Amino acid sequence: MAEGYRYLVPPPIVARGAAGDRLDVRMSQLIREAAPGQAFDVGFIGVPLSRASISPSAASENPTAIRLAWRLFASYNLDYDVDLAALRIADLGDVTMHVTDIPRCHANIEEAVVEALSSHPPFFPVFIGGDHSITCPIVKGLKRVTPGRTIGILQVDTHFDLRNLHDGGPSNGTPMRGLIESGTVAGSNIVTIGVHGHFNALAYKRYADEQGVRYYTVREVRRRGVEAVVDEALAYLRARVDAIYLTVDMDVLDVAFAPAAPASTPGGLATWDLLEAAHRIGREEKLAAMDLVCLDPHRDGRAQSTVKTGAHVVLNVLCGYAQRIRQQG
Amino acid sequence: MAEGYRYLVPPPIVARGAAGDRLDVRMSQLIREAAPGQAFDVGFIGVPLSRASISPSAASENPTAIRLAWRLFASYNLDYDVDLAALRIADLGDVTMHVTDIPRCHANIEEAVVEALSSHPPFFPVFIGGDHSITCPIVKGLKRVTPGRTIGILQVDTHFDLRNLHDGGPSNGTPMRGLIESGTVAGSNIVTIGVHGHFNALAYKRYADEQGVRYYTVREVRRRGVEAVVDEALAYLRARVDAIYLTVDMDVLDVAFAPAAPASTPGGLATWDLLEAAHRIGREEKLAAMDLVCLDPHRDGRAQSTVKTGAHVVLNVLCGYAQRIRQQG
Amino acid sequence: MAEGYRYLVPPPIVARGAAGDRLDVRMSQLIREAAPGQAFDVGFIGVPLSRASISPSAASENPTAIRLAWRLFASYNLDYDVDLAALRIADLGDVTMHVTDIPRCHANIEEAVVEALSSHPPFFPVFIGGDHSITCPIVKGLKRVTPGRTIGILQVDTHFDLRNLHDGGPSNGTPMRGLIESGTVAGSNIVTIGVHGHFNALAYKRYADEQGVRYYTVREVRRRGVEAVVDEALAYLRARVDAIYLTVDMDVLDVAFAPAAPASTPGGLATWDLLEAAHRIGREEKLAAMDLVCLDPHRDGRAQSTVKTGAHVVLNVLCGYAQRIRQQG
Amino acid sequence: MAEGYRYLVPPPIVARGAAGDRLDVRMSQLIREAAPGQAFDVGFIGVPLSRASISPSAASENPTAIRLAWRLFASYNLDYDVDLAALRIADLGDVTMHVTDIPRCHANIEEAVVEALSSHPPFFPVFIGGDHSITCPIVKGLKRVTPGRTIGILQVDTHFDLRNLHDGGPSNGTPMRGLIESGTVAGSNIVTIGVHGHFNALAYKRYADEQGVRYYTVREVRRRGVEAVVDEALAYLRARVDAIYLTVDMDVLDVAFAPAAPASTPGGLATWDLLEAAHRIGREEKLAAMDLVCLDPHRDGRAQSTVKTGAHVVLNVLCGYAQRIRQQG
Amino acid sequence: MAEGYRYLVPPPIVARGAAGDRLDVRMSQLIREAAPGQAFDVGFIGVPLSRASISPSAASENPTAIRLAWRLFASYNLDYDVDLAALRIADLGDVTMHVTDIPRCHANIEEAVVEALSSHPPFFPVFIGGDHSITCPIVKGLKRVTPGRTIGILQVDTHFDLRNLHDGGPSNGTPMRGLIESGTVAGSNIVTIGVHGHFNALAYKRYADEQGVRYYTVREVRRRGVEAVVDEALAYLRARVDAIYLTVDMDVLDVAFAPAAPASTPGGLATWDLLEAAHRIGREEKLAAMDLVCLDPHRDGRAQSTVKTGAHVVLNVLCGYAQRIRQQG
Amino acid sequence: MAEGYRYLVPPPIVARGAAGDRLDVRMSQLIREAAPGQAFDVGFIGVPLSRASISPSAASENPTAIRLAWRLFASYNLDYDVDLAALRIADLGDVTMHVTDIPRCHANIEEAVVEALSSHPPFFPVFIGGDHSITCPIVKGLKRVTPGRTIGILQVDTHFDLRNLHDGGPSNGTPMRGLIESGTVAGSNIVTIGVHGHFNALAYKRYADEQGVRYYTVREVRRRGVEAVVDEALAYLRARVDAIYLTVDMDVLDVAFAPAAPASTPGGLATWDLLEAAHRIGREEKLAAMDLVCLDPHRDGRAQSTVKTGAHVVLNVLCGYAQRIRQQG
Ligand SMILES: [Ca+2]
Ligand SMILES: [Ca+2]
Ligand SMILES: [Ca+2]
Ligand SMILES: [Ca+2]
Ligand SMILES: [Ca+2]
Ligand SMILES: [Ca+2]
Ligand SMILES: [Ca+2]
Ligand SMILES: [Ca+2]
Ligand SMILES: [Ca+2]
Ligand SMILES: [Ca+2]
Ligand SMILES: [Ca+2]
Ligand SMILES: [Ca+2]
Repeated sequence: MAEGYRYLVPPPIVARGAAGDRLDVRMSQLIREAAPGQAFDVGFIGVPLSRASISPSAASENPTAIRLAWRLFASYNLDYDVDLAALRIADLGDVTMHVTDIPRCHANIEEAVVEALSSHPPFFPVFIGGDHSITCPIVKGLKRVTPGRTIGILQVDTHFDLRNLHDGGPSNGTPMRGLIESGTVAGSNIVTIGVHGHFNALAYKRYADEQGVRYYTVREVRRRGVEAVVDEALAYLRARVDAIYLTVDMDVLDVAFAPAAPASTPGGLATWDLLEAAHRIGREEKLAAMDLVCLDPHRDGRAQSTVKTGAHVVLNVLCGYAQRIRQQG
Repeated sequence: MAEGYRYLVPPPIVARGAAGDRLDVRMSQLIREAAPGQAFDVGFIGVPLSRASISPSAASENPTAIRLAWRLFASYNLDYDVDLAALRIADLGDVTMHVTDIPRCHANIEEAVVEALSSHPPFFPVFIGGDHSITCPIVKGLKRVTPGRTIGILQVDTHFDLRNLHDGGPSNGTPMRGLIESGTVAGSNIVTIGVHGHFNALAYKRYADEQGVRYYTVREVRRRGVEAVVDEALAYLRARVDAIYLTVDMDVLDVAFAPAAPASTPGGLATWDLLEAAHRIGREEKLAAMDLVCLDPHRDGRAQSTVKTGAHVVLNVLCGYAQRIRQQG
Repeated sequence: MAEGYRYLVPPPIVARGAAGDRLDVRMSQLIREAAPGQAFDVGFIGVPLSRASISPSAASENPTAIRLAWRLFASYNLDYDVDLAALRIADLGDVTMHVTDIPRCHANIEEAVVEALSSHPPFFPVFIGGDHSITCPIVKGLKRVTPGRTIGILQVDTHFDLRNLHDGGPSNGTPMRGLIESGTVAGSNIVTIGVHGHFNALAYKRYADEQGVRYYTVREVRRRGVEAVVDEALAYLRARVDAIYLTVDMDVLDVAFAPAAPASTPGGLATWDLLEAAHRIGREEKLAAMDLVCLDPHRDGRAQSTVKTGAHVVLNVLCGYAQRIRQQG
Repeated sequence: MAEGYRYLVPPPIVARGAAGDRLDVRMSQLIREAAPGQAFDVGFIGVPLSRASISPSAASENPTAIRLAWRLFASYNLDYDVDLAALRIADLGDVTMHVTDIPRCHANIEEAVVEALSSHPPFFPVFIGGDHSITCPIVKGLKRVTPGRTIGILQVDTHFDLRNLHDGGPSNGTPMRGLIESGTVAGSNIVTIGVHGHFNALAYKRYADEQGVRYYTVREVRRRGVEAVVDEALAYLRARVDAIYLTVDMDVLDVAFAPAAPASTPGGLATWDLLEAAHRIGREEKLAAMDLVCLDPHRDGRAQSTVKTGAHVVLNVLCGYAQRIRQQG
Repeated sequence: MAEGYRYLVPPPIVARGAAGDRLDVRMSQLIREAAPGQAFDVGFIGVPLSRASISPSAASENPTAIRLAWRLFASYNLDYDVDLAALRIADLGDVTMHVTDIPRCHANIEEAVVEALSSHPPFFPVFIGGDHSITCPIVKGLKRVTPGRTIGILQVDTHFDLRNLHDGGPSNGTPMRGLIESGTVAGSNIVTIGVHGHFNALAYKRYADEQGVRYYTVREVRRRGVEAVVDEALAYLRARVDAIYLTVDMDVLDVAFAPAAPASTPGGLATWDLLEAAHRIGREEKLAAMDLVCLDPHRDGRAQSTVKTGAHVVLNVLCGYAQRIRQQG
Repeated sequence: MAEGYRYLVPPPIVARGAAGDRLDVRMSQLIREAAPGQAFDVGFIGVPLSRASISPSAASENPTAIRLAWRLFASYNLDYDVDLAALRIADLGDVTMHVTDIPRCHANIEEAVVEALSSHPPFFPVFIGGDHSITCPIVKGLKRVTPGRTIGILQVDTHFDLRNLHDGGPSNGTPMRGLIESGTVAGSNIVTIGVHGHFNALAYKRYADEQGVRYYTVREVRRRGVEAVVDEALAYLRARVDAIYLTVDMDVLDVAFAPAAPASTPGGLATWDLLEAAHRIGREEKLAAMDLVCLDPHRDGRAQSTVKTGAHVVLNVLCGYAQRIRQQG
């Protein structure tokens, strides 16, 4: 059992379930609970906070939903001929949260990031949110761990998340603003893919322009192809920063594909484009960490389409990561 | 438009709709927006806070859901031969909230209560929550307005709401604890109807006993009849306090009757018993204010059974109130 | 196949399904398609009209939903030790409807009643609606077939259905008004069980009183017991009229029991009380016909609770009818 | 409040809600209630009729659903860099309807169009249905207002809507037939985009061919690209008529994208293609008015995907309109 | 981890989750995984078989659903002032199943019962189904473990489950028939509470009568009170048998209370009556084991009303059991 | 009525419903019940078995759901200008099933295929499943009828269905394995379109390679176009086999398009690609039979998107078939 961490509690759910077929290895069979000091390649950290969401959200339940979903996925990916069984994958549990003190929750997240990365040899951390407010303290934590590193952000999102911090404090509408204003990440080191339609105020589009945030609309993704856009975004960031942080807001998907992302919209990305992007980004050598946010499993239908999609996005990043490791190894 | 309040914003939704029949007067046609200084009999105040809920809740959307629902109800009640058209009913709007500062939300609620009651001749305030954490600042506000008054609470709830304030702060599990610990209401001036089953920890049952909280289980309500239990509870409080505050947590209903109360349980009250209680309590001369909490309209089915039931609970209290006013008048 | 009728089309769905157990006879196995001239004890007639409903309703789909549901019910009733296999039951199909000409639909219903009853030896007709507007032309048709008979109505409903005909024409809010104003049924020969709460305007309660409509609230049913109330209602009507028509509006049930009745309410009847009433009414010797209305199967959950309940209400009436026939036989 | 109209009632719902962020202007903050004589650029008119739908539909609830949804959309569109705050937008309320007299409803629609357009300086009217039967009286009304103008129709729909008027009267299956037979619009001035699959009878395909209706299947849209097809359609109409009326039947979308369009089908358009088309059509200088029909909000899931999509289709047309106005200005 | 059993696999899900409040002990915190040889008071055994159900059922998923639900229940029961923390409760995991060999599944169940009871000092076994077919091999296993004991069955069910074994083999319609025909339990040692309505064929009612099965309809339960009926049933069995086996088929509840029981019906028991019965039966000194069957969690709404109710039924039995143990101790 | 078959029971549901428009011919009006000896072009055979599914499935209800759905489809297809009214289409009913004996069900399927094909002049059989386990006995039956024919399989599926038969017997995870191991179809005569992502174990990918199964991922379909992939697959099979069997597992679709396919996944095919493939395959001269499997109508939303899509896939194959017949004729 994951003990010995101060800002992390053991995973509240352990799903051991296998496929009932000896030859079919499922993700749930690969993931081990972490203990301080252990070495592994990939570490999952649940961040069950969603009371900082502007609209009501149960994204706090997502880390558990994703844990239950790992039983549904084989470790092998046929598209890329990659078996994730080659990776050592650990579950570090969930960041400790408080019921009513949101600033303390954000502080705990930052501390948990520092603690997790300091307690193990280097690994690829995957943060499972929670609402998008978690990205700001996560990246601050990463910065504290490796202060000299310049961090860039590849944000896949329908929104800029550049709202002013005055009106509502650090919510799921502000993570990029918080990172810019705190000097953690320069605006020009942020690339946002997926903004579009009537879902961002003019004032914040102007702020994005002023700060040099680079962005691609869904329409541009459709016209140029997701491969070209992602490659361009990665090349841009690769040339500017030491480490790239990927943040995937599930509301980037069209509402038909992500009914459980509280703010998903008509005209958003299709699942296949997001999956293609995820794999491509996973192969990027400067990719240092990632999160998956704004997935409220209580809104999913019984087909669990959004939870399944979110889990597969993570898997596709890991496939790219595994291929990169393999090449490097 | 409701202007001039500091801690209240105008209702975000106005539903004017009528029944399409000139002789059928609906509640939505009776309710007027309030302006400071106006006199009326009943005032609705929305309290759209649910990020203080232990489990995820969209009860913040309930004031709007109830506003939309008034179109469904005639002003006339056939059970009691009462027409609420005899009352002047105002909507004072919603308490101003903050996205991430929960203590400020609670402070705003208390201030809004003081402001609302100070801005008008005396009226019967009906607070539409929100999660149950709102009851503590509401009652504190009422106490500030009339400091000399001893306040008793009639709580209709599956839970005691006496959790310790240390572990999670002032959440929807703590309003009664907060009122006792702050000296606002004595434990012996609280009566709880509806606690039952495996839904309260032994430690808090003991705390209730120590503080002299009086309570009736659902099983006792079924055995003795809701009329006897409510009358006994009212008689007990009437003899001890100057003013009775009614708080209705919708999770007191069996989960079949209140699917949209996040914590509703098997074995809870039936709707008809809650409706009977509501009317009886409404006739109580010491009844001074009420709230309705923990109704998350996002969880309702398309029949909107919980929203409709919650609205009718309020109406039944108002029918009792109208009868009492009429008798006194 | 049901041919030869002018105002009736054959049932659009035939469900033959059996239980997969030779000893378990299902209702679907008993019901035969009718042909003009045949003799039978009970005849089902679908009345797929719901565009006369004030609020949107797909009750037009209910005759088909009920036909599909007969596969779920054994012919034998354990509560009353009655096997409906003793009855000859026929399906006469659906009344012909028009897409946009509502007056013609109502005229067709009246003609279909006359045609159906004139084409066969006497039988007990069961009309499966449809919205409540159908009751007016049905009863007018029955009156035309047997002009000398005084007809009384036992209405089980949350509403009086006495709206003025001026504002919206003959809708599901007006069937009783239409029957009174047309002189088909005297107000004093109508008994309504189940009115309650904030669901009838004062103006129509007054009209009911003026016309001598007798009514019992749900609260009275709960206090006195459904048996006493139904027996009193039947005794009252039996003493005054030659024939009793039963109309069951599914919205008389509490919304938890009838989510698919568009206007079902909190505080309505429980299923068990309605089932008890149905059987008791079925035994009444003056009972001449019945309908079941305002059941919109599109609103049901996948448990199909409302459709199943509606079908069982009809079955309980038929059990009473079978017992009566047996006694008389 | 919208008063002084004869065939229009004020909007039954007013949603004022803002985003809780001073810099984020929402559509709901732009839209003002109209009063006769006022000037504005765009006028919304609700047409809450769906009892003329062949299959059961609650599209009558759509004008209210869309009004509530405006709170979700920023006034700014990032894809086209257009801020609709530059437009004066008014809500003229809903056309007066009757419960059971469908011909009168259709007559009221035609009169309301004449009244609305006669009561204000020229504006771009946006009719929010309602079922598709409303398009016939709307276009007849437009014709009466400007009799000399030749009107062409760009219909985006899975169906031709050319059913014979004899079998069911003027329903949602007949608007194009009604316009052709009444001489309001020539068949050769109708272009239909989106017909496909097993959703139109051979007889009506033949009628379309005989009347010279031009049409593009979804398959052709996919093969050629929506831009090419829309441009060709607009060029064709522009060369033939004085004014183009756009009618968008939401069932043109694949059922995965429009679960709340009662007749949406597998193999329909994707949301992104419809959005692209909407913007392109909005820029057309001869575009004179539009409607959005066959969206039944009762069938939507809690993600409200269809309502959100329908609202955004309107917004994209308005963005094109705003760009055109700006260029002309 | 539960190892060393041959016919049991470890629980596929472990839910450790606590309430986030140190004083609130949840059932999930009490239940430990069993290992052969351990002593405990109560042992849960999952029986994830539902492919023997006549109608499609996912009751195989119920053991996992119940395991996840234990997090929702305090160990303390306020109605009976009992804390289940006084009991040692173990989870022995799930019976091993086969995908397509149903007879082998039934054989495995019987063997698992023998193995489980032989591997530990005596304990109270609680079998979590699965469909009702599991009761036959469970009771056969119990008989093998203690051959000299006469076993009686208290069945709470809408159905007799006495279908002939010829037509469909040992399904969820036959467990009582299987036990009678195999000589495991005499028909006269079976009492069924909850049969009613049109849900049992006449042939099987006759078989019940021939075999001396004693039964009480729901209507009798309502008329006499559940307490009287249960006490009479227990007294009857107590006088005749050495050990009483309780089997609770969730479809005994009215469909409004158990939407996730595939065959729940209108007119079934209310939750409160089932809960009262459960506690009363739990106190019975001859009660030796129990099961809970026919709960398909895939059919539940998001309020999870049926799963919560099923879990509470088990808890109420355990409260009675704890009281009995305490008295005896 | 379909009588005289031994392994087929008449269809449990007959849906006669027409469109209410004399010129609009629906599929339900074309399909006639078969009787032995009759000649027709296309024969539907329901295969209501889903208890052989690894995960719980109600695909056994799909033949009935599809029968009810035929009322929604015109016989005419606008995309291909084909009217299926040119075909004689029969419904042979459902294969007889057993409740608990799965091997007997599989044997019955094989016998029913032989019986059906032996009882009529040659026709194109369309098997409506049911879970995917049915494909193995169906193809075995076809082989028995025409032993000399080499059969190839075009499988459209997310999965290989090559699981070992030892662990769970012949389930929906094994049909291709069963056909290979039994020597009915050579691995190299199987082409699978649609495998992708984390949904197949590495061991089974290796088995596919060893056996020479040819496959195309969804990603390849997207990159090359579905037309190219399908044409290549057909050319490959055409060159190698005498007869091609098409099996469509609905889980090949993305979960957004097939919520009712129990194992549908993110990243699956879009509906339009599957429809295009279906038509292309239908035109293949060597196409000899087809099935549609793993569609659980109980999981569909009320828009019935998956059922509608599944039905249209069959129709598109039939359109291709009709074109081929016409050309040959
Ligand atoms: Ca975001
Ligand atoms: Ca976002
Ligand atoms: Ca509570
Ligand atoms: Ca509470
Ligand atoms: Ca009525
Ligand atoms: Ca009614
Ligand atoms: Ca249309
Ligand atoms: Ca259409
Ligand atoms: Ca049973
Ligand atoms: Ca049962
Ligand atoms: Ca398959
Ligand atoms: Ca598959």
